[in-house]
Amino acid sequence: MSSMISGRIGVSIFGESHGPAIGVVIDNLPSGESIDMDKLCEFMGRRAPKKDKTSTQRREKDIPSIMSGFFNGKTTGTPLCAVIQNTDRHSSDYGNIATLARPGHADYTGVVRYRGFNDIRGGGHFSGRLTAPLCFAGAVCGQILERRGIYTGAHILKIHGVRDVSIDSVNVSRDDVIAMRQKSFPTISDKAGEKMINEIEAARLNLDSVGGIVECVTVNLPAGIGSPMFDGLENTIAQLVFGIPAVKGIEFGAGFEVSDMYGSEDNDEFYVDEKGHVKTRTNNHGGILGGISSGMPITLRVAFKPTSSISRPQHTINYSNMTNDTITIKGRHDPCVVPRAVPCVEAAVNIALLSHMLDYPNF
Amino acid sequence: MSSMISGRIGVSIFGESHGPAIGVVIDNLPSGESIDMDKLCEFMGRRAPKKDKTSTQRREKDIPSIMSGFFNGKTTGTPLCAVIQNTDRHSSDYGNIATLARPGHADYTGVVRYRGFNDIRGGGHFSGRLTAPLCFAGAVCGQILERRGIYTGAHILKIHGVRDVSIDSVNVSRDDVIAMRQKSFPTISDKAGEKMINEIEAARLNLDSVGGIVECVTVNLPAGIGSPMFDGLENTIAQLVFGIPAVKGIEFGAGFEVSDMYGSEDNDEFYVDEKGHVKTRTNNHGGILGGISSGMPITLRVAFKPTSSISRPQHTINYSNMTNDTITIKGRHDPCVVPRAVPCVEAAVNIALLSHMLDYPNF
Amino acid sequence: MSSMISGRIGVSIFGESHGPAIGVVIDNLPSGESIDMDKLCEFMGRRAPKKDKTSTQRREKDIPSIMSGFFNGKTTGTPLCAVIQNTDRHSSDYGNIATLARPGHADYTGVVRYRGFNDIRGGGHFSGRLTAPLCFAGAVCGQILERRGIYTGAHILKIHGVRDVSIDSVNVSRDDVIAMRQKSFPTISDKAGEKMINEIEAARLNLDSVGGIVECVTVNLPAGIGSPMFDGLENTIAQLVFGIPAVKGIEFGAGFEVSDMYGSEDNDEFYVDEKGHVKTRTNNHGGILGGISSGMPITLRVAFKPTSSISRPQHTINYSNMTNDTITIKGRHDPCVVPRAVPCVEAAVNIALLSHMLDYPNF
Amino acid sequence: MSSMISGRIGVSIFGESHGPAIGVVIDNLPSGESIDMDKLCEFMGRRAPKKDKTSTQRREKDIPSIMSGFFNGKTTGTPLCAVIQNTDRHSSDYGNIATLARPGHADYTGVVRYRGFNDIRGGGHFSGRLTAPLCFAGAVCGQILERRGIYTGAHILKIHGVRDVSIDSVNVSRDDVIAMRQKSFPTISDKAGEKMINEIEAARLNLDSVGGIVECVTVNLPAGIGSPMFDGLENTIAQLVFGIPAVKGIEFGAGFEVSDMYGSEDNDEFYVDEKGHVKTRTNNHGGILGGISSGMPITLRVAFKPTSSISRPQHTINYSNMTNDTITIKGRHDPCVVPRAVPCVEAAVNIALLSHMLDYPNF
Repeated sequence: MSSMISGRIGVSIFGESHGPAIGVVIDNLPSGESIDMDKLCEFMGRRAPKKDKTSTQRREKDIPSIMSGFFNGKTTGTPLCAVIQNTDRHSSDYGNIATLARPGHADYTGVVRYRGFNDIRGGGHFSGRLTAPLCFAGAVCGQILERRGIYTGAHILKIHGVRDVSIDSVNVSRDDVIAMRQKSFPTISDKAGEKMINEIEAARLNLDSVGGIVECVTVNLPAGIGSPMFDGLENTIAQLVFGIPAVKGIEFGAGFEVSDMYGSEDNDEFYVDEKGHVKTRTNNHGGILGGISSGMPITLRVAFKPTSSISRPQHTINYSNMTNDTITIKGRHDPCVVPRAVPCVEAAVNIALLSHMLDYPNF
Repeated sequence: MSSMISGRIGVSIFGESHGPAIGVVIDNLPSGESIDMDKLCEFMGRRAPKKDKTSTQRREKDIPSIMSGFFNGKTTGTPLCAVIQNTDRHSSDYGNIATLARPGHADYTGVVRYRGFNDIRGGGHFSGRLTAPLCFAGAVCGQILERRGIYTGAHILKIHGVRDVSIDSVNVSRDDVIAMRQKSFPTISDKAGEKMINEIEAARLNLDSVGGIVECVTVNLPAGIGSPMFDGLENTIAQLVFGIPAVKGIEFGAGFEVSDMYGSEDNDEFYVDEKGHVKTRTNNHGGILGGISSGMPITLRVAFKPTSSISRPQHTINYSNMTNDTITIKGRHDPCVVPRAVPCVEAAVNIALLSHMLDYPNF
Repeated sequence: MSSMISGRIGVSIFGESHGPAIGVVIDNLPSGESIDMDKLCEFMGRRAPKKDKTSTQRREKDIPSIMSGFFNGKTTGTPLCAVIQNTDRHSSDYGNIATLARPGHADYTGVVRYRGFNDIRGGGHFSGRLTAPLCFAGAVCGQILERRGIYTGAHILKIHGVRDVSIDSVNVSRDDVIAMRQKSFPTISDKAGEKMINEIEAARLNLDSVGGIVECVTVNLPAGIGSPMFDGLENTIAQLVFGIPAVKGIEFGAGFEVSDMYGSEDNDEFYVDEKGHVKTRTNNHGGILGGISSGMPITLRVAFKPTSSISRPQHTINYSNMTNDTITIKGRHDPCVVPRAVPCVEAAVNIALLSHMLDYPNF
Repeated sequence: MSSMISGRIGVSIFGESHGPAIGVVIDNLPSGESIDMDKLCEFMGRRAPKKDKTSTQRREKDIPSIMSGFFNGKTTGTPLCAVIQNTDRHSSDYGNIATLARPGHADYTGVVRYRGFNDIRGGGHFSGRLTAPLCFAGAVCGQILERRGIYTGAHILKIHGVRDVSIDSVNVSRDDVIAMRQKSFPTISDKAGEKMINEIEAARLNLDSVGGIVECVTVNLPAGIGSPMFDGLENTIAQLVFGIPAVKGIEFGAGFEVSDMYGSEDNDEFYVDEKGHVKTRTNNHGGILGGISSGMPITLRVAFKPTSSISRPQHTINYSNMTNDTITIKGRHDPCVVPRAVPCVEAAVNIALLSHMLDYPNF
């Protein structure tokens, strides 16, 4: 199944960038969970194109219509479907490049995979626009988790070499998480944020784009959630996160830095605090050991490549006649996807964690 | 399912470090595939403890007995089960630390998850020993892929700061892959390998351990394999790779380095070569676009943390009475898991790719 | 997953009887398959309420809007979503019986399962109306199968003791299948059909309802499709067929009659015909041996209970205060679901067979 | 996956009739559940060949060795694997008929499916012998359910036209279930049992075989277990039951008899009894409405065809050269599989119900 994932929570995402609508079905949600639609739209609004220069000029209202699974303000427990109409379609922007493979995009691989029958307009099903239904699902799951005290939030750790301060993976609080999510340009250091905005703007003016890293944290997940081997928290989160376009890597806790560490540095020593809670003094394990939560904050970082659509001429192929050619991409696109990717990462994590939480006794 | 993964190829791994046996069931293998048992044992031998100082002194013969699914030297198409007896068990090594949570291990999280009923001797089901059946499955899948010309191999890219040269992700050949696998200490640069061995030995003498990075490549995978969203090549590979203990991160192609790049650098321009094949001049995309293979080599890197078992005293908790305590781990353990992790990464990739290849027309 | 099934073809059905819309997402369809919308609506029209007395007076236009996965008249290979608006809702019909459990319905079990939060209007997600998206999915799969020569059709074998002639499970042809489907009241014997209509009308006038049996056949399925144990054709078909409300049993080939037979009668002897095709002279095995198709027609029968909604007073409970009470169901309902169930059975079979056919070499 | 099923409980069955061993991996069992090995062997013993004339003369000790997932007498929560050695193999019995398709068996379909590479000796993976690991898994699940008061038992309802009395689906008690299971020839009426034994013996003397029906009941399953559509109790039970060789049909509650009934007869009226429990006065729904348990006993019937192996000459094909031929099957085989199928049906039901029960709050 390409766009259907079925753990304890099932998520089925459908739609193409320039088709009539996109949407999602969420199966096996717990019943009786209220959904605050304002908070949900706020979550999705963080993914929507910004009204400033860092983002595409395409205007997407992206107001989801709930078709099922929601009654009297609460989840019914039966499949919840939300549909988002595609209202602002400019297919003609793409017509002239229909058979030129845009470098960095899935145009060529999609055409081979689907033997030329997929809808390539605007990337079709591969479009970043499909993260809107992912965010819808993630926002719903997030509200259910927050009702149990479990909060997930992310910030921009890096854009084109400019680095924000990292989350304090030991002491981060629920309030820190909420604060991070409320910023219009979500960095911990505003100064780093300003520099990043400048990097993005410079790339845009230069008809180029830049990549970056999103760092995400979850607080208050109880210990004992997850499983070893193929159904651990990392496995499920990674499977979902790689469903977001442009992701090139994921790491948990100390991540790739462990390759420079000694065991005596990396090992997080356990202790029992004065309230009788088990904790670790450092959190290089990112809150997960053997696929199972330790009770410490879950931390992870996700690498996003620079937007593939750039307005410079690029060499490529015309796959209608297999010749070498040159492409100049017009149309609307973000010079950097990272700011809008922040809630997408949160969404993927929320879905993964709620799915595992359903196994938790007394959930 | 913790230890069962069911794509097109199903893999079910069972066993504990100190139980009677460990093993694996592989379901839905294509029928009529011969398995070269010498090559298979050679593959598994690369994972077995080395006879030098870089590795645990535990002797595991690890000769798998095939119980089913294999007849007249070929796969039958029905489930193939292999069992490996646990012959060299020294449970007493672990007796005295039975209720002290070893830092970096899944002792504490496993006890919470399984309410104290899991077999904790030697890590139980969380033990690195469970990678033996994973390697068995990966070796079988690998032989089937190689019969179609698809070769996967990995090397040690880094150990504790010492870096090997990277795989040439554009020009790497089948022979390069085979050569990489034949080395007893698999680095591309022998000099880098020597330095790494010194790092490991220094750590061992210092009662410490070191982490590192494995880099893996697959050549000759045809274009068009995989799917968008949740069932792409990255999703499946990541889900399997995080099934290997001690993995903290995975990246494809340029990976986390994309966060420092411009789109104009990162985008891989397509061209048609003189034979009419579609290629890219660079391979920052790691052979995967939109979850689907492009025909270029698949490249990925996996971060492994330092061995958690170190012989120094460490602070920790005694979870039988929830008190703070100190642990000194005795017993046999590797000062660095990375050399033995190399075939494990190959195994995970082989399973993921064969699973996706079964959808390929005329496979 | 309650309403999501993920084999090689994924199907995710959503909606409630009186919500805004119902629909379905079909994942992993082969790309490049044209869909004849007239034929599709004709298929769905056979499930729609009849304009005669055998059926509910509720008017459902049930025109599906395709939201995705369909481009230039062909499947794209990415998820195909169809939505059907609920236009003719009379919720007030159900208001007064909101907390009385209708006997034979899932009102009580649904309320326990979903802790009272499910949408009970008109049966909610348990409504027979949800077979409309099932039929949509089945019609799409059926057209893809028919392009390969594989035809599935069903007829009413029995209604309240009146029995139609059985399908000739050895000699049934493609034309027989098509003829069966074209009848407005699908029986092989028109005389039997008339008697059945009389039974239904008699029940209706008596404020009662009647049950029956649907018999289904598939011709030209090649030998070798399916798998042993849990993923055989019977397993998959049964899992889907029990997704249709009111089904109480399923049997293949000779079915329950095998309990009266000798092996020497039941065994179907193989022979090679003059064209070199392997056949059996009888077809008690219903075209399936060991979960795998034999090349003979697939035959099965499905039992449907009488419509649970009857207009007579019935004893029941009020689950709001757990007291005994009496219910008299008003509103629109069929005195017999069997005629409308005929295409639903075909749909379930089509989905199951296409799912298995995707494993077929050169499909 | 042919022989791997992954709901909340995962079951992976492997082995061939004449290979080294058969077995099963059970994944995601709850931890801390004790297993009474005597009761387990007793359960499996009911499936083993009887020492009388109704059964094959093959002696199978079938003592399962537990390889993992079981520690200090309790389940660990990690995968439980059991292996049964094949000790009493007489492959030569089958050698001479190796390329003649035995009518009623999966020889021909298996050879097409697996392109001639499957192990056909004794039916290979299609052998009834593979129900031994199924029974192992079912026995383990059954003990876990019984600890919660949920008991499942079955009896022979019919053999070749001779009918036992049916289970009282309204008043059946836990003690009735246990009594049924303790009989060596499990019928409710001993007289009916004697007649059945005579039918089997007559068939045997006549070199023939007979089929029958197994009826199964589960008591004390709480209301609210299961889900609508594709993941209801019927769907899951049916998917598992069709994994038992020779099954041709399954029905729940009144089953196929509903085709002769009025809604006013079939509907089971609810009432609240003096203890405040919700019940129905009749149980035509078999304890399941909308895929979800009602709290009434779960009842189902499964049809088994006559043993396909009969010692009479039968026409068939030689698939090595596609010619018509004649086969006379020698070797050991039961003239009726129904008595040994009784615990197999219980096993399938136990696995299905435990799988669904894991979703139950406070399980």
